[in-house]
Amino acid sequence: MNAPDPRPKARRARGLQDRRGPGLAVERGLIEAIAKVYEDWGFEPLETPAFEYADALGKFLPDQDRPNEGVFAFEDDDDQWLALRYDLTAPLARFVAENFDTLPKPYRRWAAGPVWRNEKPGPGRYREFWQCDADTVGSASPAADAEMIAMACAALEAAGARKGDYTVRISTRRLLDGLLENLGVGQADPRRLTVLRAIDKLDRLSSKGVQALLGVGRKDESGDFTQGAGLDDAAINRVMGFLSTGGDRAGTIQKLGEFVSGPIAEAGLRELGVIDSALSALKVGAEAWVDPAVVRGLEYYTGAVFEAELIGALDAEGDSIRFGSVGGGGRYDDLIARFRGERIPATGFSIGVSRLAAALQAQQAAQADGPVVVLVMDQARIGEALAMANELRAGGVRAEAYLGGGAMKAQLKYADKRAAPVAIIQGGDELAKGVVTLKDLKLGARIAQNLGEDREAYAKSREQVQREVPRAGLVAAVREVLAKT
Amino acid sequence: MNAPDPRPKARRARGLQDRRGPGLAVERGLIEAIAKVYEDWGFEPLETPAFEYADALGKFLPDQDRPNEGVFAFEDDDDQWLALRYDLTAPLARFVAENFDTLPKPYRRWAAGPVWRNEKPGPGRYREFWQCDADTVGSASPAADAEMIAMACAALEAAGARKGDYTVRISTRRLLDGLLENLGVGQADPRRLTVLRAIDKLDRLSSKGVQALLGVGRKDESGDFTQGAGLDDAAINRVMGFLSTGGDRAGTIQKLGEFVSGPIAEAGLRELGVIDSALSALKVGAEAWVDPAVVRGLEYYTGAVFEAELIGALDAEGDSIRFGSVGGGGRYDDLIARFRGERIPATGFSIGVSRLAAALQAQQAAQADGPVVVLVMDQARIGEALAMANELRAGGVRAEAYLGGGAMKAQLKYADKRAAPVAIIQGGDELAKGVVTLKDLKLGARIAQNLGEDREAYAKSREQVQREVPRAGLVAAVREVLAKT
Repeated sequence: MNAPDPRPKARRARGLQDRRGPGLAVERGLIEAIAKVYEDWGFEPLETPAFEYADALGKFLPDQDRPNEGVFAFEDDDDQWLALRYDLTAPLARFVAENFDTLPKPYRRWAAGPVWRNEKPGPGRYREFWQCDADTVGSASPAADAEMIAMACAALEAAGARKGDYTVRISTRRLLDGLLENLGVGQADPRRLTVLRAIDKLDRLSSKGVQALLGVGRKDESGDFTQGAGLDDAAINRVMGFLSTGGDRAGTIQKLGEFVSGPIAEAGLRELGVIDSALSALKVGAEAWVDPAVVRGLEYYTGAVFEAELIGALDAEGDSIRFGSVGGGGRYDDLIARFRGERIPATGFSIGVSRLAAALQAQQAAQADGPVVVLVMDQARIGEALAMANELRAGGVRAEAYLGGGAMKAQLKYADKRAAPVAIIQGGDELAKGVVTLKDLKLGARIAQNLGEDREAYAKSREQVQREVPRAGLVAAVREVLAKT
Repeated sequence: MNAPDPRPKARRARGLQDRRGPGLAVERGLIEAIAKVYEDWGFEPLETPAFEYADALGKFLPDQDRPNEGVFAFEDDDDQWLALRYDLTAPLARFVAENFDTLPKPYRRWAAGPVWRNEKPGPGRYREFWQCDADTVGSASPAADAEMIAMACAALEAAGARKGDYTVRISTRRLLDGLLENLGVGQADPRRLTVLRAIDKLDRLSSKGVQALLGVGRKDESGDFTQGAGLDDAAINRVMGFLSTGGDRAGTIQKLGEFVSGPIAEAGLRELGVIDSALSALKVGAEAWVDPAVVRGLEYYTGAVFEAELIGALDAEGDSIRFGSVGGGGRYDDLIARFRGERIPATGFSIGVSRLAAALQAQQAAQADGPVVVLVMDQARIGEALAMANELRAGGVRAEAYLGGGAMKAQLKYADKRAAPVAIIQGGDELAKGVVTLKDLKLGARIAQNLGEDREAYAKSREQVQREVPRAGLVAAVREVLAKT
């Protein structure tokens, strides 16, 4: 093969990540734990392709308030446009519409995989990331929404979050619709989006900031002015009272009745009532609570909406760290109607795997060990090193023989880079005696750290770190060292 | 959300697959089992992005004999071209070149994921499929090739293939290079590709067909004529003798020395000798054998090449099914040089997960059970059904409550479609008595199959299929039924 000239530059494309080693293993373990919960709850796996016909995919990002242009698209050789999936729900809608007649109804599926967004990358914001979703298609019952919420709690706990470490906030689109109707802001009213955006900012702005956006408008720190919705004081007070109601599910539902009225809002309150009972039946307590300030994708959700957050972790200064949303979902009864005309009720939940992993990893101190490394002192006897690695594996110990060309020092450096807990050495002397030397690298590192420059003490400690064992006792000796560390 | 008009058609894009349910679960289990082997052997996971800069990816498909145009490419908004990865090795080369200084050397990684090829789809030939690879970068030792072969055997066995169900054929590019040199067909000779293509066809054509392609040429069944390499009879005989040597590794290596000579071929024979010893040290027996007819990607491999195949499975008629290659690999010392100029030795192995799953699944008769389904007789008491499903899960039983709107008959049909082994029913009568009805759906299906139209016998068997158990004994009773089936 002739290398092209000039040589291409080895660089990862913009806004993407290479993930490796223990960090990646943590993320994979997380997906396995969550998938196990989804399977236990009767969801079956589905894997749709990475790309779809662009028109079938549509452009309805659930966490955006308007159709988004941010997809990666390319033209097929038959002139049709293809687009990489930007979430796992749009392909599900296509799959259900295409296979509707043969699917069990309700159809319950889970899926995990990467999604791609053609957006401006930034710190911690990538153009490829993993989602892990569950959806129930074909059930209009709020009990299906409740099941999603309960399963989200179970999944977060399976992933390692303890009760008290996470919270799921619940609301329904119907409550907001009812409130807006009460305020005289109808579906076609241009102030509608301004009001909803103001409510959605309660997390980031003070309630004073939200009040300003509901009224005349707000000047931010940079001096930029955002035009407000122009509501009067009575209306603003009503919205703020509505938003500040929260806590215990049943009590909140009752109290919200003071701020909203009419058939739409009442349907919303009844819906939350059914969700509350179902959650109680599923033994979900205060970790899931009603918060009318949950907004999520405006054009997308038609009923219940919910959002999960990790809380309570402490940083090095002992302050509580907020990780923000690690997942969310809701009811989207209109998505499949794009294809079929008729409405198909559906509800689902999506966990942002990478963000959840980052949040959980921040709580993990210890790093995992690498494999045991068998050094090769004499290339002519590499077969013996391979056999030792094989014996160790048969004894349940992850192990490898060094396959590079380096001398002893380079090989020990390699073992360090691999975070190997133990190195195995068999030189000519050891061979003649029928023994191998076993080097406890973790103990060695601890001692080296403590002794600093004291060479005499170091020489003494060497005996602890390094010892000969009979060749036949190799596996037992290694397992003994590993059990201690 | 307003449905666009006209409505988009719900259809999967050309040449792609939706995979679901038990079939997908089998494939996932396979990847897990193989990954476990790779991890045990000291390989760390790596996940690179789905796409790369097109120039960094290059176009070197390992199983094609020339650079291939078949990639999916698209333009980024900064005018750079991106391309979906067509295998897992090209991104590895980019990753290693980009991170060379910080990686342990040798660098050992495994990876599993989808790859995409913009090729004409056909039956069983998709434009997206999964690979599961392991590679060692930075070791020039043939022991590293041997380790790949031994690990491939271990991976196939972990995936469920028994000894005797698979075979790994081994050769080295140097043998073919030596043979061609002996025949006077040098690197730049136009006959070179014709000879190699003829050898590569030994699997599909008779040896007579290959002889014709080495000589004057061959007319196929359709009457098309393929021009031959024009070798004389002595040369053809030499090639055919070379190709028909095979079997026991050490014996074959010795025998091959009769057909090739010179420094290149001798280096190849020495290389195979080291691989043989290392395989013996790793306790790999006759399942891995030397077959000089293994060719693989001509522009790609620089040393050892190997190919794994499943064999021995019997079809419904009792005939042996050949599944063809389920994986392969070899040494590619030039791939990273594209970026760095200097040669970095590397060897790897790739398992075609989808093909392996299909081959193994053909040997599996039984289909996995679905979850237990708790029916809902009265929507007002859905909470009780949810609680029962919860109790079953807590007792280690996969379970769900029916969340659709159908009546009893539709719910039982749903349970059938889900392959539920048991349905739980609690109507008003049962509630009053403090019991639930447990319906053994698998037993029911077996009885219905055997009784055909005999209604009287059917009524009798109903007692076996359906029975009442105390509500408090639900979980124990379900577990008892599941243990029996």
